[in-house]
Amino acid sequence: MSVESTKDLSTITDAEVFDAHIGGKLTIQSQMPLNTKRDLSIAYTPGVAKVSQAIADDPTKHSTHTWASRLVAVVSDGTAVLGLGNIGAAASLPVMEGKSALFKEFGGLDSIPLVLDTTDVDEIVETIVRLRPSFGAVNLEDISAPRCFEIEKKLIEALDIPVMHDDQHGTAVVVLAALIGAARQTQRDISSLKVVVSGAGSAGVAVTNLLLKAGVADVIVLDSRGTIHRERDDLNPIKAELAGRTNREDVMGGLAEALDGADVVVGLSSSKFDEAAVAKMNKDAIIFALSNPTPEIMPEDAKKFAAVVATGRSDFPNQINNVLAFPGIFRGALDSGAKKITEGMKIAAAHAIADLVGDDLAEDYIVPSALDERVMPAVAAAVAAEAESAK
Amino acid sequence: MSVESTKDLSTITDAEVFDAHIGGKLTIQSQMPLNTKRDLSIAYTPGVAKVSQAIADDPTKHSTHTWASRLVAVVSDGTAVLGLGNIGAAASLPVMEGKSALFKEFGGLDSIPLVLDTTDVDEIVETIVRLRPSFGAVNLEDISAPRCFEIEKKLIEALDIPVMHDDQHGTAVVVLAALIGAARQTQRDISSLKVVVSGAGSAGVAVTNLLLKAGVADVIVLDSRGTIHRERDDLNPIKAELAGRTNREDVMGGLAEALDGADVVVGLSSSKFDEAAVAKMNKDAIIFALSNPTPEIMPEDAKKFAAVVATGRSDFPNQINNVLAFPGIFRGALDSGAKKITEGMKIAAAHAIADLVGDDLAEDYIVPSALDERVMPAVAAAVAAEAESAK
Repeated sequence: MSVESTKDLSTITDAEVFDAHIGGKLTIQSQMPLNTKRDLSIAYTPGVAKVSQAIADDPTKHSTHTWASRLVAVVSDGTAVLGLGNIGAAASLPVMEGKSALFKEFGGLDSIPLVLDTTDVDEIVETIVRLRPSFGAVNLEDISAPRCFEIEKKLIEALDIPVMHDDQHGTAVVVLAALIGAARQTQRDISSLKVVVSGAGSAGVAVTNLLLKAGVADVIVLDSRGTIHRERDDLNPIKAELAGRTNREDVMGGLAEALDGADVVVGLSSSKFDEAAVAKMNKDAIIFALSNPTPEIMPEDAKKFAAVVATGRSDFPNQINNVLAFPGIFRGALDSGAKKITEGMKIAAAHAIADLVGDDLAEDYIVPSALDERVMPAVAAAVAAEAESAK
Repeated sequence: MSVESTKDLSTITDAEVFDAHIGGKLTIQSQMPLNTKRDLSIAYTPGVAKVSQAIADDPTKHSTHTWASRLVAVVSDGTAVLGLGNIGAAASLPVMEGKSALFKEFGGLDSIPLVLDTTDVDEIVETIVRLRPSFGAVNLEDISAPRCFEIEKKLIEALDIPVMHDDQHGTAVVVLAALIGAARQTQRDISSLKVVVSGAGSAGVAVTNLLLKAGVADVIVLDSRGTIHRERDDLNPIKAELAGRTNREDVMGGLAEALDGADVVVGLSSSKFDEAAVAKMNKDAIIFALSNPTPEIMPEDAKKFAAVVATGRSDFPNQINNVLAFPGIFRGALDSGAKKITEGMKIAAAHAIADLVGDDLAEDYIVPSALDERVMPAVAAAVAAEAESAK
């Protein structure tokens, strides 16, 4: 990857992007030949009738004799697409096709993009539940908060297969992995860290929950109106619940107040980090500025105040990218026959990612590259092992 | 194909069939490389955001810059799977995967199997309508009658894309194509033919409708209780409506009464054709015994009474198989941007199939082989031309 630089990426033109997307990005292939009448008699009638009857007689054969058990539904309603907001289901399809391409390339998993022309929580849940026998797992994508929390919760309750909203948990896993790396680099344990999470959307909430679950001492979460604390009366139910478990000292105010004495800040909204606020952080500060394409603070500025800096961009060091997590998480869950993706599986995934860094750990190498081929197998193995141990 | 014989097909073992279906039959591929950060920046973020924004600004780009416009949803609720009956959605999935494989092999079209864990007409319609932006056409498959008529009708009304229940219309198109060939072989015009359709399920109703639309003089339809006529008071609404347009002479009774003086019989149920009944048919009788795997009458018996015999089986001459029709119909409809599949498009498809026989027409060659590579392009071109001319 060293031959690639910012310059290589900046040469991508709009024409090149649009040309590459003409006709869409995915295609279906048959894994069986269909060249002769004999082939047809095996793949289709009359042979296939025996397989269907066998599944009718023994439902467990659905997972061994169809593609469902290695198929992920990539589901969106187009309400929170990348940084574009609520652009609708049809406009979200290129992103979901891309996600399916990533699932194949990085996870060896098949997937189908399903974009839904409704934003009603119950209608979305009901639609996916009705389609249940068509696939083996559900990756929710680009669904706006707080609806995404309810949709995921209801689907997990209704289905006996892995369901995960990647904007929440994929992000949380890679942030935790990077934090483990950054803590090691600065010779601390994550349980000693005071963390500020800027952004209380889907990613902010999930990151906060996973960091607390993994043992981080305290987290202060900021939404657009400042720190979330128990005195606020303008919080939706998700944030109100969060207020009871975070910000132990009830810090009030904005980013500057929150960062005063903090060890880590994780940027998950477009709110900028000004230098005066960042300057208040503790020694060996860790700054993850994950907003894309423009980080909350540019790495060269953040470095003045921090020991470790990471962004979401591939053209800076320490890219925190979901592709490190979701392919292996779904692959491990499906390989192990897990019925859900637990907090334990997410933490196992984060440790697997962090551990791959090994002796190469450095301030500009706290997580493996998004293209590191060791990542998916390691994450999948860790997730599957955790799933097996919990059985 | 001449090297293949009945013996070749009979050597297919159960073990071979089950082995071939392990893990399912389909796989997804990305059409774009994903090997470098540059590739990822084009196929996924940040590049894909430009494509999504472009679709949000101009919805017509949904059909040019996603795979939807070449993607068919293969939809079933598992209520009438092959000859197996109502075995449920999960057990129907191998058939739908096979159908997707056929779409790719014979139509060059991508498709995704969607099997629905509900048999409620309105829930099925609602589910597909919500998924509308995910695909460009809907192939309904193996849905029981009379629900299939209502589901198809409601989906055609609700959607602005091609919708077709293949068990109805794919069958009707190939039966019409074969009848055109058989009429030519026996030097008659189809408008002169008196036809008996045995079976009033999805295929029987659609075949009857298309034959009448194409100009066949009269059709008598039989259900399990005998001929459908206006005096019967035990008919569901679909059959009652059919009674008003068929059986002009109100023939009452069973198969023997119906075949007395008939030119053609089309078997679309498992009811046997006994020789005494078939013997009552007119000179140059045409017998299509399409029940699979066991025809209503075996070809060697039928030949005693008929000038032309066809079955649904690949190991006898004159195989009447939907694969001659549906790939080209959907391909032509999608290529031409048609918003629905009309009766005119179906009749055009039937003529295109029949015309490929050309000078090779013979009593054992009234339709092309299911594996004849000329068929799909010819059908697609005829369907697209009809769609264009109707614009």
